[in-house]
Amino acid sequence: MADKSEKTKARLPRGFADRSAEDIRAVEKMMATIRSVYELYGFEPVDQPMIEYTDALGKFLPDQDRPNEGVFSFQDDDEQWLSLRYDLTAPTARFVAENFDKLPKPYRSYRSGWVFRNEKPGPGRFRQFMQFDADTIGTPGVAADAEMAMMMADVMEALGIKRGDYVIRVNNRKVLDGVLEAIGLGGEDNAGRRLTVLRAIDKLDKLGPEGVKLLLGPGRWDGGKEGEGDFAKGAGLDDAQAEAVLLATARNGQAGQDSGVSANAVYQEGVGELATIEALVRAAGYGEDRVLMDRSVVRGLEYYTGPVFEAELLAEIPNDEGQIVRFGSVGGGGRYDGLVSRFRGEPVPATGFSIGVSRLMTALKNLGKLDTSDVIAPVVVLVMDKDTESLGRYQKMVADLRAAGIRCEMYLGGAGMKAQLKYADRRGSPVAIIQGGDERARGEVQIKDLIEGARMSAEITDNAEWRAARPAQVTVAEGELVAEVKRILAAQAEERARGR
Amino acid sequence: MADKSEKTKARLPRGFADRSAEDIRAVEKMMATIRSVYELYGFEPVDQPMIEYTDALGKFLPDQDRPNEGVFSFQDDDEQWLSLRYDLTAPTARFVAENFDKLPKPYRSYRSGWVFRNEKPGPGRFRQFMQFDADTIGTPGVAADAEMAMMMADVMEALGIKRGDYVIRVNNRKVLDGVLEAIGLGGEDNAGRRLTVLRAIDKLDKLGPEGVKLLLGPGRWDGGKEGEGDFAKGAGLDDAQAEAVLLATARNGQAGQDSGVSANAVYQEGVGELATIEALVRAAGYGEDRVLMDRSVVRGLEYYTGPVFEAELLAEIPNDEGQIVRFGSVGGGGRYDGLVSRFRGEPVPATGFSIGVSRLMTALKNLGKLDTSDVIAPVVVLVMDKDTESLGRYQKMVADLRAAGIRCEMYLGGAGMKAQLKYADRRGSPVAIIQGGDERARGEVQIKDLIEGARMSAEITDNAEWRAARPAQVTVAEGELVAEVKRILAAQAEERARGR
Repeated sequence: MADKSEKTKARLPRGFADRSAEDIRAVEKMMATIRSVYELYGFEPVDQPMIEYTDALGKFLPDQDRPNEGVFSFQDDDEQWLSLRYDLTAPTARFVAENFDKLPKPYRSYRSGWVFRNEKPGPGRFRQFMQFDADTIGTPGVAADAEMAMMMADVMEALGIKRGDYVIRVNNRKVLDGVLEAIGLGGEDNAGRRLTVLRAIDKLDKLGPEGVKLLLGPGRWDGGKEGEGDFAKGAGLDDAQAEAVLLATARNGQAGQDSGVSANAVYQEGVGELATIEALVRAAGYGEDRVLMDRSVVRGLEYYTGPVFEAELLAEIPNDEGQIVRFGSVGGGGRYDGLVSRFRGEPVPATGFSIGVSRLMTALKNLGKLDTSDVIAPVVVLVMDKDTESLGRYQKMVADLRAAGIRCEMYLGGAGMKAQLKYADRRGSPVAIIQGGDERARGEVQIKDLIEGARMSAEITDNAEWRAARPAQVTVAEGELVAEVKRILAAQAEERARGR
Repeated sequence: MADKSEKTKARLPRGFADRSAEDIRAVEKMMATIRSVYELYGFEPVDQPMIEYTDALGKFLPDQDRPNEGVFSFQDDDEQWLSLRYDLTAPTARFVAENFDKLPKPYRSYRSGWVFRNEKPGPGRFRQFMQFDADTIGTPGVAADAEMAMMMADVMEALGIKRGDYVIRVNNRKVLDGVLEAIGLGGEDNAGRRLTVLRAIDKLDKLGPEGVKLLLGPGRWDGGKEGEGDFAKGAGLDDAQAEAVLLATARNGQAGQDSGVSANAVYQEGVGELATIEALVRAAGYGEDRVLMDRSVVRGLEYYTGPVFEAELLAEIPNDEGQIVRFGSVGGGGRYDGLVSRFRGEPVPATGFSIGVSRLMTALKNLGKLDTSDVIAPVVVLVMDKDTESLGRYQKMVADLRAAGIRCEMYLGGAGMKAQLKYADRRGSPVAIIQGGDERARGEVQIKDLIEGARMSAEITDNAEWRAARPAQVTVAEGELVAEVKRILAAQAEERARGR
């Protein structure tokens, strides 16, 4: 610990973020819309705590290059290990397994909340982020998977994302599993290599086919050239094996006709399930522009066992630096038939979808779909005299305005009138209320329209002219305060609606 | 780790809770109301992550009988200590200190979120719970404290708690500090004993004056008798000192006239501030039935430096076991002038209030103020045939109903018709839709009104009579599905409104 005389440094830990009023309001708005779609589909809210027994969470994270394999963990006083959840799926599986007999089955539920990854932080890569999941547990049929894909397409449109600006991609892990089995990577012994293959494919967008091929084969240097960055060990596939994998996971990929893959039973099961999902989705009226079968989708998490999904924004969106970029994935999911089963010792099939809340919010904000400018800053009642009696009068004005539903505050700092008006300006306040001794003696209040005032001050260049005009300011009897403020706010709202 | 063949045990860690749909909806509803009051008072949302550097949080918790002094902590890969926040105030102080120049001052903000305590769990005592705070930072005047108290009174009434069923109690730490100084417990050397006194007083409701007196004096056995439970060391006050403290912190307490306390400057400052708060609150029209000066309020957290508040529910409320209890505290707060300053090395006065979300929600639910029965369970479309074409048809019905804004789902399990109706019943579904082969051939659907059906089945005792009546079931053309379901739901809504 630092010496007591030293002051503590105020610093946000690396990989964590404070959220602004604008972002919080935007997320609230977005989540309300997502929630309404989940509810429409018959899902119910439920949620789990952020801390679980470490063994209950399992080890399914893609990045294991950090202590505790990407998870924040600590020991309880009875020496049992606890961890912060790294996603919402593993705790959901624990919850359903623990309360299995009490729940209707299939069990449709949704939940949102923060999850934690003990990873190396980087630009746009946070160690705490929010997810918003929906899950259907207790149904083996791919109709549940088809529904997940369609629901996510509906979520995108409910959020104002135009058709053609997003797509839900669907694939099936069994397709890749079949290919791997066919090229000799089946069985328990090869589980580690299969995982390496999976994670290599998941990096296709980032590394391109050349990079992925290295990861499928001998391995790859993080920096792209020998000796640059860390060396990531590859899956050790030979060229023919790597080709078969790349062919089967190309965006509109098919297994090579000559590779023997097509005779593989798991592969055929995967292809069959995909065909059923496609038929169900089309029958419900969702075209390829909304839900697309795409062999390149694998997802990074180990626990998926069947269909996998990814929600991608196709719109080219200005990012925070103003560059136009294709935004990419804002969520994904899949079938995880093993997660509940590992607690129950009996098959409990399950499928789910997870939306990355911060990413989607950023995209929507940049698309102009999360306008929060309808939130009006508070009216500020200035404090001209600080005796208790005067403060009581100002407090009364504030109370009257609030009782009329007007957002309002009494200035609580120690500054003079000029600084108080500056404060109101900084808050973006629409109106300031002033009552000094003279006004009080006459039973009056001054009301400044700060929006109109700012507009006029932009037009008036001369200070003397300004003083003469005393723009946008009226004096009314105390009893007229609420009515007059209402009138000004209404006029400002009208101006905004006219889009000045 | 357990052997792979063993299944993992699904268990919620001790001191944590899963939340039900009903509780989540109730909390949402309650928080929206609290938020609207905070907004009306001019506060802005902002929030901090759940993890902070341990030194930034400081050590201010009342219970230090656990490892890490009540905080969950872990080391980052650069060996720095991180902790889960134990309240929302310490992270807020860090945030304000770090972004001081960018923020308008005074800075009014609010935030809600989970906090964590590494404490011994017990009945109703959780290790993760939610708080909803408002803070005004950068103002030394007690007008800010008065506002906090009034805002909380407004929050209570906005939530439907009747006047007289709650009270906001206000005291000032300086009053107790002055008393302690006057009886010889001033100075840095006695900081530990002062803290022990504070925490003893905070337990007045739980232990009564006798128990508190032991904690002020020699100490107390947790079990109440010698040798029972752990021994808590006392503050070591003699009888006269303990009496002075108890006198000054009695519910409508005054300092003893003869103790010399009244001449103490800190004491006088505290009493003066309380008088100002009282005058401001009364001037704004808040009577003693809403905001009450009460010398018994001290609050358990170490960081308070001036006025302290407590929101108490006076209503006698049936608890979850149906017993009538006086609910007690649902939130509190106070002035913490040192928390931001410890980062800044300059005075940054601050005051805030924290609502215990789960406790308040429980109280409101038991008062019948958080009715969520307006949420209608989904209509269930039964699956009579499982071929892809039929599934597509059912999916289409579901999609049409949803497009009309009706909460709806296709049954996704593997069960037969009877079990499917049981599922719909378990979900509390208002309507079930059935289309078997015969209906399909005729282009029709069966629609069951499950609410009316349940009512009729309660009246019909004979099975044959039941079959003959085929209660609450209509068959319509496929094209009439949406209109007919709407009609039934409207009829059900009308019945509910009539309060059947």
